[in-house]
Amino acid sequence: MVRTRVHNLFVSSDGYAAGDYVTFEKPIGDAGALFSRFDGRVIDGIHGIDGTGDPVTADHAMFSMWGQGIGAEIMGRRKFGPQTGPWPDDGWEGWWGEAPPFRTPVYVLTHYPRESIEFDNGTSFHFVDAAPDEALRLARSAAQGLDVRLGGGPSTVSEFLQADLVDFLHLIIIPVVLGAGVRIWDDLAGVEDRFTVESVSTSSGLTHQLWNRIPRG
Amino acid sequence: MVRTRVHNLFVSSDGYAAGDYVTFEKPIGDAGALFSRFDGRVIDGIHGIDGTGDPVTADHAMFSMWGQGIGAEIMGRRKFGPQTGPWPDDGWEGWWGEAPPFRTPVYVLTHYPRESIEFDNGTSFHFVDAAPDEALRLARSAAQGLDVRLGGGPSTVSEFLQADLVDFLHLIIIPVVLGAGVRIWDDLAGVEDRFTVESVSTSSGLTHQLWNRIPRG
Repeated sequence: MVRTRVHNLFVSSDGYAAGDYVTFEKPIGDAGALFSRFDGRVIDGIHGIDGTGDPVTADHAMFSMWGQGIGAEIMGRRKFGPQTGPWPDDGWEGWWGEAPPFRTPVYVLTHYPRESIEFDNGTSFHFVDAAPDEALRLARSAAQGLDVRLGGGPSTVSEFLQADLVDFLHLIIIPVVLGAGVRIWDDLAGVEDRFTVESVSTSSGLTHQLWNRIPRG
Repeated sequence: MVRTRVHNLFVSSDGYAAGDYVTFEKPIGDAGALFSRFDGRVIDGIHGIDGTGDPVTADHAMFSMWGQGIGAEIMGRRKFGPQTGPWPDDGWEGWWGEAPPFRTPVYVLTHYPRESIEFDNGTSFHFVDAAPDEALRLARSAAQGLDVRLGGGPSTVSEFLQADLVDFLHLIIIPVVLGAGVRIWDDLAGVEDRFTVESVSTSSGLTHQLWNRIPRG
């Protein structure tokens, strides 16, 4: 009865949701434009911009759903770091420094399991070689009755959509044309039949789409 | 640098934001239609509808700002109860039962101070005979660096707007015509000059307006 939720998934006009060529220097690859209107300060609430003169916008209200009632996250390996293959002994603990914003258990999907990493703020990373349904089982059990956030990247979201494991998807259409990157819609023809979709456009030029899985059975 | 915020203030097409004739039986008076599209389940987050088959809507995202980063509330007396004049010895502790949703100190504006009431869930009601600026000083001091929510009703919001004490106002235009009730805009001609206003309409027919005070000085 809890939900598996995707938040703040920006998609370009030509259907890309991340850049290619992720490196240590470029965590999102060649796709900076995708996130140019994102505001990470409000993912845990609109008060994240207190102390600035910035107005609270409708985009902020939509972004701020990210942290609401989440008990665990699942992410693909490339969201955690740019390495591929066996993990190098490089001390890498993710992009986020001493206080990753997740503050819950996070399950990182990888074919190369390694030891968990724990932070003082409640974030812990667990590395699992698991299919989507198995990863979701683990995350749900860790979430203690709260929802599970599927944190991306887009390949991971796409896999979970193909396996019909997504209950809620907050997708944001941004009018930029990337020309290349990681596609979100491959092998998903007709996926909209399983969802209701509400679209809301804001004055920034973004269109927020709320995809809700139609109740099963 | 913290904000004084108003949330989920529904206003009818003809400018009313509450009904007349509040009684114990009718907490919002003759204005049920005003709140017919409100969903109180999500004021602390969209997971409030987990366990139902209900979709998460853009309205839900907007409603859910209510609880974000709030450390205290100020409300008018009529939001607390329908009594007028000196408090009767009736054991009244508000409309909300054992666990009022506020979970912070709440300052109730009244010309008849009485003893505070405390609940186990962190809610406490304090009754103060104070002008808006003095009430705000009390609430800010209790809020411990978080924002203060100005909880209504509309007469109270109107007074605070006249005193230029509102930093953020989430107003919702609902296309119903009430014909009577408590007006929100009296003595506020030109108030919009102090704010930027963003409007977003949703598929439910509501228009959400985000009023942000233009930085002072």
